[in-house]
Amino acid sequence: MSRLRLIVVSNRGPVSFSRAADGSRVARRGGGGLVTALRGLGAHHDVTWIASAMTDEDRAVAAERPGEAVDEVTQSGAPYRLRLLDHDRNEYDRYYNGVANGTLWFVLHYLWGLGNEPTLGAAFRRSWTDGYERVNAAFAAAVVEELDRTPDAAVWFHDYHLFRAPALVRAQRPEARLAHFVHVPWPQSDYWTVLPDDVRRAIHEGLCANDSVGFHTERWRRNFVQSAEELADARTVTTVNPISIDPGEFDELSSSAAVLEEERRIVSSRPELLVVRVDRTDPTKNVVRGFRAFALLLEQHPELVGRVGMLALLDPSRQSLTAYTEYFEAIECEAAAVNDRFARDGWLPVDLQAADNFPQSVAAYKQFDVLLVNPIFDGMNLVAKEGPLVNERDGVVVLSENAGAYAELSDWVVPVNPFDIEGQAAALYEALTLAPAERRRRAEAIDAHVRAHDVAAWTETVLAEIHHPASTILSQ
Amino acid sequence: MSRLRLIVVSNRGPVSFSRAADGSRVARRGGGGLVTALRGLGAHHDVTWIASAMTDEDRAVAAERPGEAVDEVTQSGAPYRLRLLDHDRNEYDRYYNGVANGTLWFVLHYLWGLGNEPTLGAAFRRSWTDGYERVNAAFAAAVVEELDRTPDAAVWFHDYHLFRAPALVRAQRPEARLAHFVHVPWPQSDYWTVLPDDVRRAIHEGLCANDSVGFHTERWRRNFVQSAEELADARTVTTVNPISIDPGEFDELSSSAAVLEEERRIVSSRPELLVVRVDRTDPTKNVVRGFRAFALLLEQHPELVGRVGMLALLDPSRQSLTAYTEYFEAIECEAAAVNDRFARDGWLPVDLQAADNFPQSVAAYKQFDVLLVNPIFDGMNLVAKEGPLVNERDGVVVLSENAGAYAELSDWVVPVNPFDIEGQAAALYEALTLAPAERRRRAEAIDAHVRAHDVAAWTETVLAEIHHPASTILSQ
Repeated sequence: MSRLRLIVVSNRGPVSFSRAADGSRVARRGGGGLVTALRGLGAHHDVTWIASAMTDEDRAVAAERPGEAVDEVTQSGAPYRLRLLDHDRNEYDRYYNGVANGTLWFVLHYLWGLGNEPTLGAAFRRSWTDGYERVNAAFAAAVVEELDRTPDAAVWFHDYHLFRAPALVRAQRPEARLAHFVHVPWPQSDYWTVLPDDVRRAIHEGLCANDSVGFHTERWRRNFVQSAEELADARTVTTVNPISIDPGEFDELSSSAAVLEEERRIVSSRPELLVVRVDRTDPTKNVVRGFRAFALLLEQHPELVGRVGMLALLDPSRQSLTAYTEYFEAIECEAAAVNDRFARDGWLPVDLQAADNFPQSVAAYKQFDVLLVNPIFDGMNLVAKEGPLVNERDGVVVLSENAGAYAELSDWVVPVNPFDIEGQAAALYEALTLAPAERRRRAEAIDAHVRAHDVAAWTETVLAEIHHPASTILSQ
Repeated sequence: MSRLRLIVVSNRGPVSFSRAADGSRVARRGGGGLVTALRGLGAHHDVTWIASAMTDEDRAVAAERPGEAVDEVTQSGAPYRLRLLDHDRNEYDRYYNGVANGTLWFVLHYLWGLGNEPTLGAAFRRSWTDGYERVNAAFAAAVVEELDRTPDAAVWFHDYHLFRAPALVRAQRPEARLAHFVHVPWPQSDYWTVLPDDVRRAIHEGLCANDSVGFHTERWRRNFVQSAEELADARTVTTVNPISIDPGEFDELSSSAAVLEEERRIVSSRPELLVVRVDRTDPTKNVVRGFRAFALLLEQHPELVGRVGMLALLDPSRQSLTAYTEYFEAIECEAAAVNDRFARDGWLPVDLQAADNFPQSVAAYKQFDVLLVNPIFDGMNLVAKEGPLVNERDGVVVLSENAGAYAELSDWVVPVNPFDIEGQAAALYEALTLAPAERRRRAEAIDAHVRAHDVAAWTETVLAEIHHPASTILSQ
């Protein structure tokens, strides 16, 4: 594909700044699937990236050249322009905690029992009007300025933080080429009724202001087409492109010193059979039910007691939201309950490690016999792709049917219904006892699939579709 | 329509027996929308009704002639045959509390926040296998015996207690004419994944074993067609017929001595403006959010303080389920909180009456200025039809967009999103201040609609479709 001009818009940028002890500015390149996926863009295209300033030093960078982008380079040395937006703190808090993570995330993943939750009153209304709309308007204003600089650039919005920005850009630049990628599940129309009519309508209209909207799976795409039609009488072109990972990055990481050191620790203490899970402590990730299923496995198969252990690497997440602190407590309680019940000298059933330690995660990926990925709903879930790629034991993936990754990997995983404790215990047993030849066949198939459908293929396909809309799937 | 042979199958029958003080057997004709709807059938058709024995005396009736029906007459004197099934107590508890009300009801109304609830483990599995399946099998066996007596009879199953029975009858009588009516909402396919794969499949296959399945609205019908296709690759003919009420019954009731006495009580204490709600204390009915909206109304419109009151007639419901006792407590708390905040001498903002008192409900129907019907989801909701029919003050209906009745009445109600507290406060204000001519126009329109589309029309239409399937809507 020829070199394109691209304006990437996402809440979190590819880099964040801080001050070192000596007072010098330090750029920390962020993690996360989206940033990883997009950081290869700069090598092939002219990229301007618009994102929120997150740290004090980000704000200092933004303040030095207000309304302008700075020149940056990616980890691999490719140049790009970075424009950080310094939002009002209160507005950002309403946008990020009040709406995006505190409300939309719950809608997008069916997290509320609708009899009692949520109460969307005046506080929500203020968060929407004086938070989400305003921050989206700031993003839209920056996009419009960048479009004035490069009118032929395509704008590529990302995810649930920016559902409104496309409509605000469209109103000012009717001819702009706008695309959005939605990295989360799309719930069905009934569940969207939990939001006030004008809000749910604004969300669907905001997305439909794009020339095209992309999803990871046909399931989420279809749900979006139906809810947009039903709730907002809105439509646009929709596409399906499952995001992926950079195999080269993981190949390199897996032999890095940091990972090898973490791996030595795991090897020195691992049980005969190791079940691994790697997640943020998010209620969507379904950690508690996973522990319950593991306990049921031990109860049903006493021969496994002392032989199998679960290593749960959990990154504490969104601890400013009550539902998340409560969920973290529930995770710790359940792990303690399983250990109280089954632990013996020298064997801990559940080894819960609450930390953000990526080398440790990669080391665990190498060592698992079974990888448990059981989210209640998940847009994609990259753990299911990362783990098998670096695993060295023909490990088996137990995968939720409600993870986006399931659409691609279903032939080679042990499927689970994430709500069915007995089913998950049975799936863990099946995975632990699968014949070696079959384990190998499946592990190789997933590895080959992920390498053939890597993140570079994803970005190039999506960008090609953005630039040649004729090749996209018409809605419905 | 010509006289038909009909086997009606529902969990609750049209009559329940008890012993009077003198030892004589007393038949109490039950309430509830379905029983009311169907009790007119006997006058026009040959009806055998199969239902669960509920009381000790029901079981005595069942035991006197095991495997046989008894001759009964409806309130209006029409004959029918009644067959009561005496289920094992434990099996019935698992079926009724464990599955139908404790699980299916929650699925059908989006009552679970899926991050933390439900835990469907061994107890649920037992309730399903040794409860729901067994009681459904007992119903199916009784249906098969009745079909042996009258092979040309059509079988008409009702509601979410009997999702499995049609498949069990079909397996034994491939040529039988089977129809089902679903009186609850049908959730969309994502939410059904909360049930184990074999269970959700069995439910959809059970229903699709019918020649046709009826729903109250196009919305629930469409959801069913999609989830049956997606989750069970199953399909059948589906129809839409919104159930209704018997206007004659309510006309008569409204001038009955019992109602007039209740009405005198209400009139003697009512405020200038009366908001009424009549519900079971079910989380689907959304009582707590209704109180919050009422409090917000008082806060936003101080001129209404002392002038408007809410009379909440709430029938305590399913108090054997924890979620229901907790919801009842939440209702009492919220009412007390509103009263603590706003009450003055001689004026109580919220008058909460927890009782099963039908004459009181009808009296309140006559007296409301605004009727609040705000369920989070509701298959139909007959309160929205009953109230306007007997109301004598051109009262306005505030109606949830997620109630089945909304599909029929939307032009003449003030619509509300049931989750939107501010929206509900605004709707109450709009309803309380609507111009008299407009109030009258709307009240008359609802009255005319309900009289033109009464329950007799519903039963005849549904029965005609059961007997002439060509007139039904093909799925998808």
